[in-house]
Formats: sequence, structure tokens, C-alpha cells
Amino acid sequence: MRLSGESFVVVYRLVGSLDECRATADDICVEQTIEFPLDLVWKEEISRQIVAEVARFREVGRGVFLADIRYSAEVAGADLPQLLTVMFGNFSLKPGVRVERLELPDSMAGRFNGPRFGRLGLRRLLGVENRALLCSAVKPMGLSPRELADLAYRFALGGMDMVKDDHGLADQPFCPFKERVLRCAESVDKANRETGGRCLYMPNITGAADSLFERARFARQAGAGGLLVAPGLVGLSTMRVLADDDSIALPVVAHPALQGSFVVHPDQGISHFALFGQLDRLAGADAVIFPNYGGRFSFSLADCRELTAGTQAPLGSLRSSFPVPAGGMSVGRVPELLEFFGNDVILLIGGDLHRHPGGLVKACREFRGLV
Amino acid sequence: MRLSGESFVVVYRLVGSLDECRATADDICVEQTIEFPLDLVWKEEISRQIVAEVARFREVGRGVFLADIRYSAEVAGADLPQLLTVMFGNFSLKPGVRVERLELPDSMAGRFNGPRFGRLGLRRLLGVENRALLCSAVKPMGLSPRELADLAYRFALGGMDMVKDDHGLADQPFCPFKERVLRCAESVDKANRETGGRCLYMPNITGAADSLFERARFARQAGAGGLLVAPGLVGLSTMRVLADDDSIALPVVAHPALQGSFVVHPDQGISHFALFGQLDRLAGADAVIFPNYGGRFSFSLADCRELTAGTQAPLGSLRSSFPVPAGGMSVGRVPELLEFFGNDVILLIGGDLHRHPGGLVKACREFRGLV
Repeated sequence: MRLSGESFVVVYRLVGSLDECRATADDICVEQTIEFPLDLVWKEEISRQIVAEVARFREVGRGVFLADIRYSAEVAGADLPQLLTVMFGNFSLKPGVRVERLELPDSMAGRFNGPRFGRLGLRRLLGVENRALLCSAVKPMGLSPRELADLAYRFALGGMDMVKDDHGLADQPFCPFKERVLRCAESVDKANRETGGRCLYMPNITGAADSLFERARFARQAGAGGLLVAPGLVGLSTMRVLADDDSIALPVVAHPALQGSFVVHPDQGISHFALFGQLDRLAGADAVIFPNYGGRFSFSLADCRELTAGTQAPLGSLRSSFPVPAGGMSVGRVPELLEFFGNDVILLIGGDLHRHPGGLVKACREFRGLV
Repeated sequence: MRLSGESFVVVYRLVGSLDECRATADDICVEQTIEFPLDLVWKEEISRQIVAEVARFREVGRGVFLADIRYSAEVAGADLPQLLTVMFGNFSLKPGVRVERLELPDSMAGRFNGPRFGRLGLRRLLGVENRALLCSAVKPMGLSPRELADLAYRFALGGMDMVKDDHGLADQPFCPFKERVLRCAESVDKANRETGGRCLYMPNITGAADSLFERARFARQAGAGGLLVAPGLVGLSTMRVLADDDSIALPVVAHPALQGSFVVHPDQGISHFALFGQLDRLAGADAVIFPNYGGRFSFSLADCRELTAGTQAPLGSLRSSFPVPAGGMSVGRVPELLEFFGNDVILLIGGDLHRHPGGLVKACREFRGLV
């Protein structure tokens, strides 16, 4: 066995005493690679080349440590599931350990195409150079395709850049996927012809592993301008394959459904930076929806800042993705959001637009007037 | 909109004060369905039929509550990702909430085939009626296909019922998938011809969404007797499609890589019962590997008991799956494990078998002699 010598680093945050955390760092090196008692390894080259090593270890707070673990690049093979399992497969089962970030050499990041459009590509599609992009969602679940399409029409007429399906809209009997997508795409197209705008309709194609690609192709044919997919439900690797598919070639917006368990406890799981920034980008997301601070969810200001940093941190030559703060946002908060996120953001407001006494179109225009 | 009236229940465990948890239960009803301000819903039938309801609410400990939330069956559509997102999509992003269990009517469970073999089917394949089944794993990573195949041969010769790949074995340059699978399958077959046994070799086919099925078909052709797949890495739905594929039709063993973040904190995520028992079964797992109590990991005795209960709890007419306690088990613990799990279990011992001074074959025979 002769390995290339190429390596990558995963930075883990460990909680405990110094001795405990040093022992955990050593454990990670073995558990995430050979998963075998070190004293029983009979080939010296395995201990030397396959078992990972603690490249750096330091205390960053009272009882909180960071350990940089260096892995041989070959161990992670060439695909996303194997990178994930080396990064955190077995150790996800232990408390007190959190993946802070990945440090991949360009050659490893280069195995992934990343976002097909990224921030610049999406701006080019929309013809919007500088301002924040605006998005809303057709909902609530329970409306018919015709009713949802009417909402989509009004959002587009009011100047939204994107209109997405609510992520709960799947292929329910009361709102079949195909009819919904056809009607909504048609409505947005009609509005675009009236306004001269380029609003993109992005249906939710999240579905069973054997129907998702079919849904994506149908959506493209129907005139959808992007796709909403929840990698927590279908797997990051499935989203990656979708994003890479040249016969689909639409912007991919990631929804965080079911990914919460990775981030919600600060002492375990995966950081906002790594999960929503780095991993979602490796898996091809052009934009990443997340529950913003101060909304219905519990992400903190710091979480949102780190997440946003992850969407644009250098990652080989992969494009950056758009952060999409959401989850109970209101038009009144737009100035504050712009101050926090800057203009390179997609602002997603759903229910609150329906509060406007002048109706949806006016609400959208007011929203648009603020950016 | 006219719904069938059919419903299912998700039982959530909530942590907090009575008032907080009552409010959370109400939140779940809205957030997991319409995700829309209830006061803005303009169609009464949506509030009445689509929004879920708290069917039962009770305190089960100091500051710990159980809420049974009843959902319309139609809301969850017909596929696993949609069931998952209704169950816990957005609420995974909030702390203090854990999915305890699903209560599906037979008609909903019946949308899934579940385990193709299940406990009885796997026993029939192996020709073992009553005793506990025995499994080991070829590892450590870093060995060549030839070296791994030699281990597989000796495990089979020693009387293991199953020999699986270590889950870290993917398609690395130092151990390519195809060569490994061919050699290991051949070795196990050779041992079977010598012993008259029926040991099954189960390679790890976990891989990118666009290569996993190809790997599975290759494995079948090569003579593999089952497949190891990590649903946390590839998605539960992908495992379900794999298990349902009649052109593959091999037992599926689920590995818990990356699923730990769902279970590791008792106040959030998904219970061992629901994740490893119910959901893995809906997704077609015939056997479920998990880190046993008292090994290298942190699962408690109660966790293991609940998990095991989940593998056999009634779930429509779906077959039960095998619990596979693992993770630093030793031959010395076999009597204790049998007392705890009974005979309807697969005991998986990896590294420890290599400690035997008489070699692997003897170690396996000793292991076998204990069940």
C-alpha cells in the first residue's frame, strides 16, 4: 500500500476535561478510520498511514477544546457518503463531539462540482446585480394547485425574484405534484410576461429516491426555474447527483428539514458552518434556507453569522452559495436583516406577506421597495 | 378538499414547563403541516383538516411531557421523505423535542414493504432456527482485498453466519470495491463448500447516490449474500428503494453511521425505538446494527432495550428486523448478551476475535460454542 501523502483535516470541538478530550481526539483517529483495536493492528503501514493523527489540539474555552484531525485523503474515497462517514459516521453516536469545519485541499474539493450557479450565476439568471434577492413561498398546505398558482402569480407580479413551494407540498392527493407545478410555472410565466421580470418558480421535488429525478425533469419541462430539495430527507449525495445532472441543470435550493438534529445542540453534531455552508455546497446547493435568528426557531445570531461564513468560505474553486434566512421573517425586519447579512442574501418571507391590508401584490412591492 | 379521515399519530417527548410544553404541542400541529400563521388561514377546512391536533397530552416526569399529535394521513403523502418531514422536518430545528414513536394505521404502514426477509426470512436463508446468529466484520481498513478475503474465509470456516465489510470500506484506491467483493464472496463460498455451511458475505455498498445501485447489483452477481448500507449517509428512502428492488433481493443490514446525532441527546432528535426500530424497518432493513451498551459507545441499557422493542413492535404487517448489538463487543460478554437480548439477535463481534491466541478460526468456534 502506497498512499499519496495527500491529506485533509476535520476540526472537532470537544467538551470535557483536558484528559478526556485528549483521549477523545486519539479515539477519533482510530474510530473514524480503522475502527479496530490499535494494539492488534499487525501491519505497521496501517497504523502509520490509515489511522488519522491529531495535528493540533488546543483549549478554546473552559472545558472546550478544538482538535484538528488529519486524515489521509484516500481514506475518504471519492464520494460524499464516504467523506461523511470518515468525518463523523461513528462519532455521531458519541456525545460531546461536534464537527466544526472541514479543511479540504483543492484536489479533494475539486472532486465535487459544487453549486452549478452559485451566487453570481443565480444573479445572472435573475438579472439582478447588487440588491438582495427576494423570495416567497406558496402555502399553506391544503390549497389546491389552482389556488397556489394564484398566489405564485401575485408574488411574481409584486416583484419577487423567486417563488418556491412550501417544503410540505409534496404529492398529496389534495394537491398533486404535476398539476401544481404546471399551474404555478404557468402563472409565474404569465406574470413575467406582464412585468418583463424574470421571477423563477422553484417547486419542491423532494420525494422518494426513485421519484425525485423524475419530478425534477418534469419540473424543468414544465418551466420551473429552480428546484427545492431537502438533503436531510433525501441524502446529501442525492442532492449532489441532482445538482450535477446536465439534463436538469437548474438552481438547487436546499431546505433544512430534518437536518436540525445535527446543529441544535451546541456540544454535538455538526456546526452551522460545516453543515449548511460547506457540506451543502459540496452537495451542490446554490442557496441554503435556514431559520433566521429572532424568528420561530432557535438559531442564534452567531449561528447565522457562522452559517453565512460557511456559504462563502474558500472551498477549492467551488462557487459560494446564497444564505436564505427564513422562518417567521417579516417585512418590518428587512432593514435589520440587510444590515446583518448585507446585500448578498436571499430574503425569504412567507406568511407575513399575507398580513398586508392592501393584499399580496402590494405587500411584495413594499418588500421590494426596501431592498 | 375532502380528506379520508384516516390519520396517524406521532408521539413527541417535550421538555419544559407545563405551559411551554402545551404551547410546543400546539406549535407542532401548525409547523409540521401548514407552516403558516393560523390567524391568516382563510379556508376553514384547512384549519380543520390539514392542521394536526393534540390528541393526548400528559406529564410523564418532572418537566417531561408526552404529546400525541394526530395528523391526517393525506398530509404525509405516500413516500418516506414526506412522512419524515411531517414527523420532524422543521421541528428538528428546535431544541427540547424528541420523536418517541410513530403510530401508523395498517393502511399507512402497508404503503411500505418493510424488510424483505426479516428475522424469519434471514433465519431461513441461513438454516438456523433458534440460536442467536453470529456475525463478524472484515477489517481494519488498509488491508488489501486479498487480505480481507483471507479474513472472510477464516470467519466463515469458524462458523460465522454472516461476514460483513467494515462500514469504512468503500471504494478506496488501496482496496477497490469490485476486487474486494469478488475476492471476499469467493472466499466465503470456498469456506461454505468446505464446511457445508451457509455463511453470507455482506459487502458495504454505501456510496454516492448514482453508484449505490450499481454496487448492489455487482455484489449480487459476485455472490454476496446480503448488503450493508448506512441510511444516515444515503438517506432512508434510498435504502427503501434498494430493499424493494426485485433485481437485487438481498437482505439489507443497516449501519448507524451519521445517525447518532438524532439519538445521542435524550431531549431531542428521534428515539432509538423510532429511528432504529420503526423507521429503519419502514425503509426495509432486515437487521439493524447499533452500538451496544457497555462497549465503545454511549447507548444505555434502556436505549438498547427500546431499540430492540422497536425492531419487533407491530407495524402494519411488516416483518420484524434483527437487532445487531455491536461496537467493541467481546466473546466474554456473550452469555450476558444472550441473557439481555435473548436468542433472536445477531451478535456482531469484530476486533476482539483477533485477540484469541489460537487464531481467528478458533476464536470463531469458541464464539459459536457459546450460543
